[in-house]
Amino acid sequence: LVVRAADKFRQAGIDMRTGHHVEHIDAAGRAVIGSGPEGQPFQMAYDRLLIATGASPIMPQQPGFDLPGVVAVKTMEDGRAIKSRLQHNAVKKTLILGMGYIAMEMSEALRARDIEVVMAKPRAEVLPWLDPELSDDVRRELNDHMVELYTGFAVDRIESAGDRLKAVAANGRGLEADMVIVAIGVRPNSGLAMKVGLDLGPAQSIAVDRRMCTSDQFIYAAGDCADAYHVVTGKKAWIPLALRANRAGWAVADHLCGKPVSVQGVAGTGVFRVFDLEVARTGLIAAEARAAGFEPATVTVSARSRAHAHPGASQIKVHLIGDKRSGRLLGAQMVGREGAALRINAAAVALHAGMTVEQFSQSDLAYAPPFGPTWDPLLVAANQLLKAL
Amino acid sequence: LVVRAADKFRQAGIDMRTGHHVEHIDAAGRAVIGSGPEGQPFQMAYDRLLIATGASPIMPQQPGFDLPGVVAVKTMEDGRAIKSRLQHNAVKKTLILGMGYIAMEMSEALRARDIEVVMAKPRAEVLPWLDPELSDDVRRELNDHMVELYTGFAVDRIESAGDRLKAVAANGRGLEADMVIVAIGVRPNSGLAMKVGLDLGPAQSIAVDRRMCTSDQFIYAAGDCADAYHVVTGKKAWIPLALRANRAGWAVADHLCGKPVSVQGVAGTGVFRVFDLEVARTGLIAAEARAAGFEPATVTVSARSRAHAHPGASQIKVHLIGDKRSGRLLGAQMVGREGAALRINAAAVALHAGMTVEQFSQSDLAYAPPFGPTWDPLLVAANQLLKAL
Repeated sequence: LVVRAADKFRQAGIDMRTGHHVEHIDAAGRAVIGSGPEGQPFQMAYDRLLIATGASPIMPQQPGFDLPGVVAVKTMEDGRAIKSRLQHNAVKKTLILGMGYIAMEMSEALRARDIEVVMAKPRAEVLPWLDPELSDDVRRELNDHMVELYTGFAVDRIESAGDRLKAVAANGRGLEADMVIVAIGVRPNSGLAMKVGLDLGPAQSIAVDRRMCTSDQFIYAAGDCADAYHVVTGKKAWIPLALRANRAGWAVADHLCGKPVSVQGVAGTGVFRVFDLEVARTGLIAAEARAAGFEPATVTVSARSRAHAHPGASQIKVHLIGDKRSGRLLGAQMVGREGAALRINAAAVALHAGMTVEQFSQSDLAYAPPFGPTWDPLLVAANQLLKAL
Repeated sequence: LVVRAADKFRQAGIDMRTGHHVEHIDAAGRAVIGSGPEGQPFQMAYDRLLIATGASPIMPQQPGFDLPGVVAVKTMEDGRAIKSRLQHNAVKKTLILGMGYIAMEMSEALRARDIEVVMAKPRAEVLPWLDPELSDDVRRELNDHMVELYTGFAVDRIESAGDRLKAVAANGRGLEADMVIVAIGVRPNSGLAMKVGLDLGPAQSIAVDRRMCTSDQFIYAAGDCADAYHVVTGKKAWIPLALRANRAGWAVADHLCGKPVSVQGVAGTGVFRVFDLEVARTGLIAAEARAAGFEPATVTVSARSRAHAHPGASQIKVHLIGDKRSGRLLGAQMVGREGAALRINAAAVALHAGMTVEQFSQSDLAYAPPFGPTWDPLLVAANQLLKAL
């Protein structure tokens, strides 16, 4: 992704060094050390250092993941490589490893080009962070669009099979395709931070405080490489998503310019569209809630996306999680053909405010026939959850 | 509107008396007094009384508002009368008096039948509860759909003009049409409550506490006839909308069944669609904020409804109001072709939680390219408003 051309940065007075590889941070001497574009050594002193190294797709170390046609989806180069392969190699069938956001979005893009799509993953659940009933709706949507799903399929190796590729599972089962997209997740690029001994957070992300400062007071970290406080648990979490990354970057700039900032936590809000389905979540799922010491109660309701009298309504499923001891709202999930993605924001704000389910249930949410029933699906769910608390 | 047939109520053990007109409440004797279906007197004792008399359209007392073809839009009978007139009287042109929700929705319904529509109102603003820049978008949308708008047109009388009707303004200007729809607002049906001396709230609605109890401890009021606390001002407000009315009814039932309930206030959240435009508001407008003793700062931003790279994006305008002294968020308004109506709920929840603009600006709202930019339009506006506070 190129947000701005290099010379735009330079015009803004920024000494931008592309092709410079930082290999080491000398924290005591406050300098970075590495190699320049022609391999020549370079060193640069700093008053403050920002590590914004992002995250990288996980590429398994098993045999065959380095074969041509096995690709990740992260950089613009990745995208170009996939497009070029589609144009020149007559890809008829693609195997996608993983079933997360990226995998779902790629499945849709490939089906739009009329390419056969097979998705595989080791775990049994399509989306483990969704309630099974909601996850089943996603599974159905994928199947309805001719995407084949193989859960419980753990790839042992990838082999060449004539002109094609074959992903082979530990039990010998194989899946053949013309291209394999690896979308099994990302990990934080925290190698430099680890080498210099900075404190680490969940998943080996770089631990930062609310000013985005690492355990070295002269070094900041922001973006997908850094961790965050979760507003529901109050504990550290690593949820690498765009808004948080962007917000953290601005916060470092504000802080360096002498503007005191204290960045609040993340609620873990995430949405995606897959074919005609909107999928949204915020906060904790029941298992996360239990792990964090809550006593979760859950409810799943189905409600209309528009008022009874209004044509074109579809069903929205809402799953809400609350804490039996405190009555607090802990999380929300929604799946539907319309009105699920944007609705999740109301629950996200409630999580930031630490609202109880009862307080949330009394919210004055919008009603007009084209946009929902008198009681918003979130309120219907909250009213039901109150009975279970 | 008939939610349920009368015999369904009776099957549920409810002694439902249709055609009974209550003329007086004997508060000391705890009885209602009135006349039955054949005009015979009737009297009924109560332990607790619920007044749920709703609201009625305002019909001006000027000459001609009783002419055939001058109609209000409230009851199912009104709707039938309008439909019948459209079918039998060859209505080619309709004049709508008023420019509120009902007026807007009727204009759309009539244009869908290819009937000429003219709207008129005395005040200069199309929607006085919207920021002028957003209100202008609504004006443009109506004009684009061939709805003529006459602001500053105060009707003095309605006259017959051959087969047609003519609304005449004080200055002699006239607007001719085949039908006149009066949609200039509603007033609470609080006559009974006034007669028996119950405390009244804003706009002569019936004053109730958080249990929906009136100033007589044996009399409740709920629905469009009752007032409510506003969560931003903490003061009484009369905002007759469906969700609050419904919620208040349930609360009375809970309370009578021995379940202690305390109904929170309203945020004044309202949405409607007019042609292809979604219009939404919650909380106070700047003028209301000043009247309530706040020192409002406002900002209006325009943002994309989808991410930059995503086709089909349109503009969403967001107007936010905050308090300079406390930093509190006071209100939000949005207008756009998609994503405005449901987005308002996030701001509504923030008002319930009493969030500052800064707290709200740090919310972890959803992002995915089909649903908005990385920074949700509400967050873009909150970030801008922070600078003005």
